Amino acid sequence: MARTFVVIGGDAAGMSAASKAKRDAPDTEVVVFEKGQWVSYGACGLPYYVKGEIETLDDLVAMTPEQFAERGVDLRQHHEVVDVDPEEQVVTAVHDGETVEQPYDDLLVATGASAIVPPIDGVDLDGVFTLHSMDSAKKVKSYLTQEGSVPEDEFLEGYGAEVHDYLTAKTPESVGIVGGGYVGLEMAEAFEARGLDVHVFEMLPHVLAPFGPGAAETVEDHLREQGVDVHLDTTVERIDEEAGRVAGVEAGGERFDVDMVLVATGVAPNADLAAEAGIELGETGAIATDEYGETNYDDVYAAGDCAEAHNAVTDAPDHVPLALTANRAGRAIGQTVAGDPTPVGDIVGTAVVKVFDLEVARTGVIDHDEAREAGYDPVSQEITAESRAHYYPGGSDLEVRMTADRESGKLLGASIVGHEGVAKRIDTVATALHADMTVDEVEYLDLAYAPPFSPVWDPVLTAAKVLAGKLE
Amino acid sequence: MARTFVVIGGDAAGMSAASKAKRDAPDTEVVVFEKGQWVSYGACGLPYYVKGEIETLDDLVAMTPEQFAERGVDLRQHHEVVDVDPEEQVVTAVHDGETVEQPYDDLLVATGASAIVPPIDGVDLDGVFTLHSMDSAKKVKSYLTQEGSVPEDEFLEGYGAEVHDYLTAKTPESVGIVGGGYVGLEMAEAFEARGLDVHVFEMLPHVLAPFGPGAAETVEDHLREQGVDVHLDTTVERIDEEAGRVAGVEAGGERFDVDMVLVATGVAPNADLAAEAGIELGETGAIATDEYGETNYDDVYAAGDCAEAHNAVTDAPDHVPLALTANRAGRAIGQTVAGDPTPVGDIVGTAVVKVFDLEVARTGVIDHDEAREAGYDPVSQEITAESRAHYYPGGSDLEVRMTADRESGKLLGASIVGHEGVAKRIDTVATALHADMTVDEVEYLDLAYAPPFSPVWDPVLTAAKVLAGKLE
Repeated sequence: MARTFVVIGGDAAGMSAASKAKRDAPDTEVVVFEKGQWVSYGACGLPYYVKGEIETLDDLVAMTPEQFAERGVDLRQHHEVVDVDPEEQVVTAVHDGETVEQPYDDLLVATGASAIVPPIDGVDLDGVFTLHSMDSAKKVKSYLTQEGSVPEDEFLEGYGAEVHDYLTAKTPESVGIVGGGYVGLEMAEAFEARGLDVHVFEMLPHVLAPFGPGAAETVEDHLREQGVDVHLDTTVERIDEEAGRVAGVEAGGERFDVDMVLVATGVAPNADLAAEAGIELGETGAIATDEYGETNYDDVYAAGDCAEAHNAVTDAPDHVPLALTANRAGRAIGQTVAGDPTPVGDIVGTAVVKVFDLEVARTGVIDHDEAREAGYDPVSQEITAESRAHYYPGGSDLEVRMTADRESGKLLGASIVGHEGVAKRIDTVATALHADMTVDEVEYLDLAYAPPFSPVWDPVLTAAKVLAGKLE
Repeated sequence: MARTFVVIGGDAAGMSAASKAKRDAPDTEVVVFEKGQWVSYGACGLPYYVKGEIETLDDLVAMTPEQFAERGVDLRQHHEVVDVDPEEQVVTAVHDGETVEQPYDDLLVATGASAIVPPIDGVDLDGVFTLHSMDSAKKVKSYLTQEGSVPEDEFLEGYGAEVHDYLTAKTPESVGIVGGGYVGLEMAEAFEARGLDVHVFEMLPHVLAPFGPGAAETVEDHLREQGVDVHLDTTVERIDEEAGRVAGVEAGGERFDVDMVLVATGVAPNADLAAEAGIELGETGAIATDEYGETNYDDVYAAGDCAEAHNAVTDAPDHVPLALTANRAGRAIGQTVAGDPTPVGDIVGTAVVKVFDLEVARTGVIDHDEAREAGYDPVSQEITAESRAHYYPGGSDLEVRMTADRESGKLLGASIVGHEGVAKRIDTVATALHADMTVDEVEYLDLAYAPPFSPVWDPVLTAAKVLAGKLE
């Protein structure tokens, strides 16, 4: 008899798994419960939607519900799963106030993550937003737009009338961004592009903590050059109001006039549903999984922003909620469920972000404390090299910071910052990490060279060469 | 007693070795014989010098003779080595008609390569050039420049008066390029930029043979869009003259009016000196070396364009005369000579070239005959994917062609063509080749993603994914 594969959550991990399972084993009944409207969308594009480079939210959709239906996936939007019973193999969903029970043979929990909202006084005011979902992005973009300045239907397609609640009587002139992570900085660019004065408040000594202080300093300088007010070591204590709307932010003992606030303090895995069902969470707070993405229950899988992944550098579970990890794991689980057991793959913590004109990338372990915790004796080296041959016009500096283990010479990680050629250069390091290379081996990689694209010694090779020298 | 390290040839390999040996073992006497004037220069920049993006040849020089002198390297320009005696450990050089004998303890042959000039009728005419050395580039650039249009000294610095022989009475309006390899196509761009009508004659069915026919077709289309006349399967039979100057090219039975010809039919290793000394050549015609760059004689090394390197994919000697290979090997040999035995490193055949607005890259083995010869059963897959997230503005198509061994799934090579993000994307594949990865392993690499730089599944991952599916 055909098996039933139930998926909770209709974004990257969930829809990848559903599609793959249905394609590889067409007899499988594949049911996806999505509590909202949107499925299979590129949340990473949301800052560019607010910025105005992407016109509608529909542009962010990779596959429409209709396309999934054509593929034979039984997608049920506006169905919120409220209970999972792994013993009986049944999930319970609520739709329009009605309760639906759905038995399964295989289950994938792909419930994603939610924006963390710290308990700041005033965080519930009109004019305070997060940016994690399609809905939240629409609210932010609406709030930048004056009432009456757009036709009634411009923001409404596929969404309902609610968004018009967020069109604003008075366009904001300044914004306080709480948190200097990816989303905070991408949104700083978006808000600047829309003409707002932008303040970024970061409670830590530097923005972009996972990229290390060296890379962060370059980013901070660049942000200031672009007119962003960057406040480091600065905790937001209170959001002020005036007539029920945001009027200012109190942070680090000072007050800053802003008439809008974006809270971008990271995300937390949506793991409560799983935890209540007895599915084990890991130390990170996300759902613990094995190399096939399976949880402590047979045939119950977890993937995407709600799940842990195995970090090949630390050889330990990790929670890095990023799009590729979700897509890869979803696809692999779909394949496994279809009868071809497929590991979800290791991560090495690769990430890249565009901050105005800068590209900022990282991979592996670059923080020395984290490296020591993983049993290494870390040594780091920073180099600056040109992005093109020294004589070829248009090049600019690249900063590469590379970390290795002193005794073994094993490459542990790197960050790269620059104006061009960063995003895909980090992939060389990421690939070397997957291959467990030493810096000596990296130094002798046969990488591409032509004057418009690189010096003869690519900056990655130069960093490895100098770091290898330091280890001797 | 201090050892004497003699280097024949003062470009990438030779000067890298000389510098490194002197730095690591300062007591070593390091003597470099260079038959010409120029040392340590970036020959890869010559097309851009002709194009006009690089003003003077001096801009291409990485380190000046004075800088080498400061480092204690005894650099002897205009010294042509005419004999090597590996038994007596002595080289003989000629300088200004005088003969100099120089004993050595360690010797590096770094004599480079020379442009191949096929025996075409008329190839010696005024107006026929090659582009491999600094001198030849100056001749070409001079020939594009009318007599009297430049001050007498503009091209003369560090060069002598000879160049003025090449200033032309009548600026050429059209050029025939014999050969559609790297240099031929880079020079097509340079000549077009200078307003010439450009014909490229390629005797093979496609330009850029090492990149495979698929990539080549995209390049050929692009060349034609840029106004270049591309003649494939077309052998140049004769260069016509009028009053001792080039007037046309006869090729494939047709005649084409051109008033200048560039011969760009590849390079051949300068291995005669070594061969006469009893140093063994490999099957490629370049000097055979072991993993330390050592020849059949103890303490006699060879590196750079005159030497073979070990290809990690074919596990066989190979001759890929490119800049990084020369620099790496030179540096490693310098280190070895200084007392720290260091392998010169494997190559995987990585290369990239800019052709007008296209970036074209390759690595590994992509030709099926070559793969079979190396003992593989090759399967290839071509995919087209976007360079950025589908919704992010400004992206363009990337074509990735990937090859793997059917039974083992071992990655063998790839080519990538596109308008952005090509040059450094190939490095991911190159690194995976060094690590002996399968396409399954490539499919699960944790590569960088952000909408401005890549789709969620990087095109390299997508190619691996589709190719892996084809292997099942």
